[in-house]
Amino acid sequence: MIKLAVLGYGNIGSGVVSVLLENRELIAKKAGDEIVPVCVLDLRDYPGDIMEDKVVKDINLIVNDPEISIVVETMGGTKPAYDYVKACLLAGKHVATSNKALVAAHGPELLAIAKEKQVNFLFEASVGGGIPIIRPLTTCITADAVNEITGILNGTTNFMLTSMAEEGCAYDAILKKAQELGYAERDPSADVEGHDACRKIAILSSLAFGTWVDYNDIATEGITKISDVDMAYARKMGMAIKLFGTSRRQADGIYAMVSPVMIRKNHPLFAVNGVMNAVLVRGSMMGDLMFYGAGAGKLPTATAVVSDVVAAAKNPQGSEIGPFPEGKLVLADQKNEKRVWFLRIDGELNQEALNAFGAAEVVLLDGKKEFACLSAPMSETELDGLLAKYPVLSHIRIAE
Amino acid sequence: MIKLAVLGYGNIGSGVVSVLLENRELIAKKAGDEIVPVCVLDLRDYPGDIMEDKVVKDINLIVNDPEISIVVETMGGTKPAYDYVKACLLAGKHVATSNKALVAAHGPELLAIAKEKQVNFLFEASVGGGIPIIRPLTTCITADAVNEITGILNGTTNFMLTSMAEEGCAYDAILKKAQELGYAERDPSADVEGHDACRKIAILSSLAFGTWVDYNDIATEGITKISDVDMAYARKMGMAIKLFGTSRRQADGIYAMVSPVMIRKNHPLFAVNGVMNAVLVRGSMMGDLMFYGAGAGKLPTATAVVSDVVAAAKNPQGSEIGPFPEGKLVLADQKNEKRVWFLRIDGELNQEALNAFGAAEVVLLDGKKEFACLSAPMSETELDGLLAKYPVLSHIRIAE
Repeated sequence: MIKLAVLGYGNIGSGVVSVLLENRELIAKKAGDEIVPVCVLDLRDYPGDIMEDKVVKDINLIVNDPEISIVVETMGGTKPAYDYVKACLLAGKHVATSNKALVAAHGPELLAIAKEKQVNFLFEASVGGGIPIIRPLTTCITADAVNEITGILNGTTNFMLTSMAEEGCAYDAILKKAQELGYAERDPSADVEGHDACRKIAILSSLAFGTWVDYNDIATEGITKISDVDMAYARKMGMAIKLFGTSRRQADGIYAMVSPVMIRKNHPLFAVNGVMNAVLVRGSMMGDLMFYGAGAGKLPTATAVVSDVVAAAKNPQGSEIGPFPEGKLVLADQKNEKRVWFLRIDGELNQEALNAFGAAEVVLLDGKKEFACLSAPMSETELDGLLAKYPVLSHIRIAE
Repeated sequence: MIKLAVLGYGNIGSGVVSVLLENRELIAKKAGDEIVPVCVLDLRDYPGDIMEDKVVKDINLIVNDPEISIVVETMGGTKPAYDYVKACLLAGKHVATSNKALVAAHGPELLAIAKEKQVNFLFEASVGGGIPIIRPLTTCITADAVNEITGILNGTTNFMLTSMAEEGCAYDAILKKAQELGYAERDPSADVEGHDACRKIAILSSLAFGTWVDYNDIATEGITKISDVDMAYARKMGMAIKLFGTSRRQADGIYAMVSPVMIRKNHPLFAVNGVMNAVLVRGSMMGDLMFYGAGAGKLPTATAVVSDVVAAAKNPQGSEIGPFPEGKLVLADQKNEKRVWFLRIDGELNQEALNAFGAAEVVLLDGKKEFACLSAPMSETELDGLLAKYPVLSHIRIAE
């Protein structure tokens, strides 16, 4: 029997206990041993809960219990999660976490400690909720170099953008609806400003390119400027607007960003709607791969955590991830990457403006005193120079 | 240095050598050792090829070479692949194969031999070409029971159905085009009759449900009866027609089949078009997962084979798959599974027929002396009884 402790008995943590109890036999078969949640750490009490008698308040009761060999961390944030996880690893316990903030901020150090202590530090659930993407990246995509990794990594914003596209609502109305449905938080900034997606694409990029990416280095823009008019143009062009986290290997370096993009119908992520997430992995030999599923939610995310628990039980000798080389991946300056831009320009159709942007395709919406076009490929720096000269109402990258 | 031999130097086999040479450093890093193709077995000679001097005609030169530790089998078919692979496993060599016919027919025996000899028998490339699906099923989806596994598993038929939908062509014209493009073979029956998809869903179902499925037990129907008129109705209803290989756990047993289905726009496999493949995995806790990519093609398939080679190099102690329990999975009789059916009925709109089929939704096409409807859920046995009484022109299952 393998004894397991859960740090943080909220939504995901209680989901982990549910999955472990509900699928006990199946998991024992896969793991080669029964896995029993013996203890949860939480500040609150849980009267009436199945773990009611097993709630502790002191992390040392877990760290110093030699019988607990696997710890699940589902507290979120870095304080005190970082100290707790580090203490557990140093005590020779495997740790599986769903905490993207912790992994993005302290991944290399925690992986190095895990390596030294010959235990696992695993974080399948930190990106893409229930979607297996961390383990496929590390154990399945081993025969080809990754040229691009791009994800729809935030269910809240994807729900909002999908609703805007389908219902024609404005941003503020959709945000309110998402909050009422519990998809968006009262302070929605972590989602709508792209910070959540930024940490996730930093983790994926680190794994894809083999050197750790500092999430602070990733140019990050959220969806707050996307309007119902932008959506109307996208619909007219048969395109969709999505929030992408993306890293791409180009001739002059690796570019990474979080930003809204417009994509065509033939893009593999075009049909990823609502709260669903997906990750596209591109290589020159393997072609395009895409992994799709529930990007959040108590039980899907909990199954991802438990898949790490099973992996730790099966491979108790150490981590299947990393360690990473010293130093961080130096990203190319996002402002230099050439992209095609969707542009809305105020006023009557204006040939001079079209020429200036090298526009090939023009789109008009009924009843609007403005026009839209797709630019020639140009960097953000070049674009910025033109934005000063023409009355551009909005600009959105086109992703191929 | 790990020495590797390739059995069958055709499209996939030569792709494996290309991937190993092209990505040599990356693969050495992932595998922990350099992997060198030292020998290929083929009846033909390959003058001018990089492996020109390394072609052998006698399998015993490989079986009896103690320095060759990994063998890739890309011959296809079961004769002589079965004898060769068995001999290699018995000689203590790891085998990675792309051969679905071999795995579907002899998987349990070969996995048992691999287990006994403490080597790997791996077959990532046998299903879904370059898509990682075998390893995710065995090593990632370990925390929840699979309730359904459904795939678009054959690129040829998916290309044909997509072209029929997009271009409005008839079946015969599209088959000719697919043959000209090299997507369909001169004798297309393995693809269009569903036999290829049948072997693949048998392998996936075996892994998903933990007991081997005999592909001969899977009710299999191809796409040869799908007409341009069926497609026109599907388009009018906003639906798509796909060839599914599927297994579903129901209250009365596990049902498996290969057949054309109609799906709505919100189905995760709706947007899988052209030669692309995808596999949907459904569980009660993890929700829907989907794995998408190139289902065929020399290099994508070769990267999947090489990912198995890397896995064998990293885990030389034995197979990550199986072994399977004795005996085969007894499937429920497909004719008893209740489904909603799309029905085209000859003649004027006929209320008696609609009532008989419990039809809720009626569709008419301009200029056709027929009508279409969606039936109430009923088994194929019940449907067969009604087909004798009404002039049904075509019937296609609806998949939810």
